Amino acid sequence: MTGAPVPTGADSVQQVELTHELKDGTVVELLETVELGKSIVKRGAEIKAGEVVLNAGTVINAAMMAVLAAFGYANVEVFRKPRAGILATGTELVSVTQTPGQDQIRDSNNYSVSAYAALAGATVERMPLTGDETSLLKSQIAAAAERCDVIVTSGGVSMGVYDVTKAALKELDAEIFFERVALRPGKPTVFARLPNGTLVFGLPGNPVSVAVTFNLFARTALLAMQGAADPTLKRETAALARSVKGTTDRDSYLPAQLTTNDDAELIAFPLKWGGSSDFVAFALTTALLVVPANVKSIEAGSLVTVLRLP
Amino acid sequence: MTGAPVPTGADSVQQVELTHELKDGTVVELLETVELGKSIVKRGAEIKAGEVVLNAGTVINAAMMAVLAAFGYANVEVFRKPRAGILATGTELVSVTQTPGQDQIRDSNNYSVSAYAALAGATVERMPLTGDETSLLKSQIAAAAERCDVIVTSGGVSMGVYDVTKAALKELDAEIFFERVALRPGKPTVFARLPNGTLVFGLPGNPVSVAVTFNLFARTALLAMQGAADPTLKRETAALARSVKGTTDRDSYLPAQLTTNDDAELIAFPLKWGGSSDFVAFALTTALLVVPANVKSIEAGSLVTVLRLP
Repeated sequence: MTGAPVPTGADSVQQVELTHELKDGTVVELLETVELGKSIVKRGAEIKAGEVVLNAGTVINAAMMAVLAAFGYANVEVFRKPRAGILATGTELVSVTQTPGQDQIRDSNNYSVSAYAALAGATVERMPLTGDETSLLKSQIAAAAERCDVIVTSGGVSMGVYDVTKAALKELDAEIFFERVALRPGKPTVFARLPNGTLVFGLPGNPVSVAVTFNLFARTALLAMQGAADPTLKRETAALARSVKGTTDRDSYLPAQLTTNDDAELIAFPLKWGGSSDFVAFALTTALLVVPANVKSIEAGSLVTVLRLP
Repeated sequence: MTGAPVPTGADSVQQVELTHELKDGTVVELLETVELGKSIVKRGAEIKAGEVVLNAGTVINAAMMAVLAAFGYANVEVFRKPRAGILATGTELVSVTQTPGQDQIRDSNNYSVSAYAALAGATVERMPLTGDETSLLKSQIAAAAERCDVIVTSGGVSMGVYDVTKAALKELDAEIFFERVALRPGKPTVFARLPNGTLVFGLPGNPVSVAVTFNLFARTALLAMQGAADPTLKRETAALARSVKGTTDRDSYLPAQLTTNDDAELIAFPLKWGGSSDFVAFALTTALLVVPANVKSIEAGSLVTVLRLP
């Protein structure tokens, strides 16, 4: 163990005889002097009794598993995984095995939201498609609420006749905390609580909006329910690879791809987004790039805040 | 869908009458002109027929799930998860539920290696402790080989009488590809193949060495077996937070913590390591920092190559 810590100072190197004669006359020659304490790890070198090894609210990674095992924590108390029910609204949706008609698309939000929810530690239940009928959505939300801690819907939160999510929530006597956020994309996001305590996140239908709003809102709730000390996405600073536009009334959280260049600089490439069409580009997204409200545009090379996606 | 792409050019804005009288005499006043094509996504805007949506060898993330679903890929052919048998050697080891004697420590490698192997996509089987007896290790490796694609051992690869791993492998007629690597930490790492094709990685016993060598060698093999297009840890450039020492004969892969500063600069903080004692610091490790062979030391502020750990 050549890298083991050795005492320093004048007495750290012990002068020894370089030859030594054994009883039977064999002469042992020592080729180099030995540093005192070399290859010896002193008891308590890791950490002192009473010190904290790991804090509560930490996501236990592989290296932490080793630390827990070494200190004899065969069983560690952890938070229960919340159960998340995922459902998508909209008569334009057909299931992944069907061929969409001219005015239809296949449901994709159920799959991405389920995957993001699983990454956030949830046990996931994917519900059938509900169309645009308030009554069907209402009965599905009610059924899911019996088993789930959190329900995440997508679509059905626009203004007007297709605003079935809020209609269903109101009929179920949900307390609606907010139904609009100053965010681009994701303005019509709804957050509510059903009378039994189940939380409901009503996300927009656009695949990029749903990914942004899930990770900003629903992910935070799921991690907070698991006692995470830091439930929100980590903010970092990156240099912008090309200019982006903001909007006057809302913060923008735009899909971006993060890379590090050869000068150790974190670079954020904004990706095409905005239409339902842009989820192909969104597959490359590794972060969200923040353009604060009232910032008209940010020039290439500027420093921006980015949130790394899980 | 305010962000939808609109056609540009002179004919993109259609001049319309700002008032319109209906048959019953009602006057409808239009408050703003409508851009032609606004809120319309053209068919095929996502991608053209015949284009590749995702390449083979990609780890499917949440956003990619949405893309696959949207294009009707209800079932996607994926590689089988390799089965990994994890075992630890050494009479100094006691299980996590036991109190170690003066010359003993609790087994921690089995847990960290199992967690890293699971992150690399493997199905993990944790085997009982084998002590220092070649015969017991041999029978356990033989038993694991019947069920596993890869076996990862820790400890028992030093020179001399405790070098039980290579002894057991030789008795099992394993083909040993290498038994020393020019690497710090991790010099005595062994890579072999049993007659039935099962791969064996004999890693050193030091918890930091085992984490470094697992992620450089065994992880790469596990990902390559799953067809990963890029099975090795991603290399990035970071600025060094404080000076580190190298060694003449070997590349060093030192535990480090990565952060991004407010200038968008990726910073690598080298962590204390070298003794078995330093696995408490290792719990903070998020990357390995490369010091090439024959580089005596690297000063703070220099650019270094880092490999982000999973």
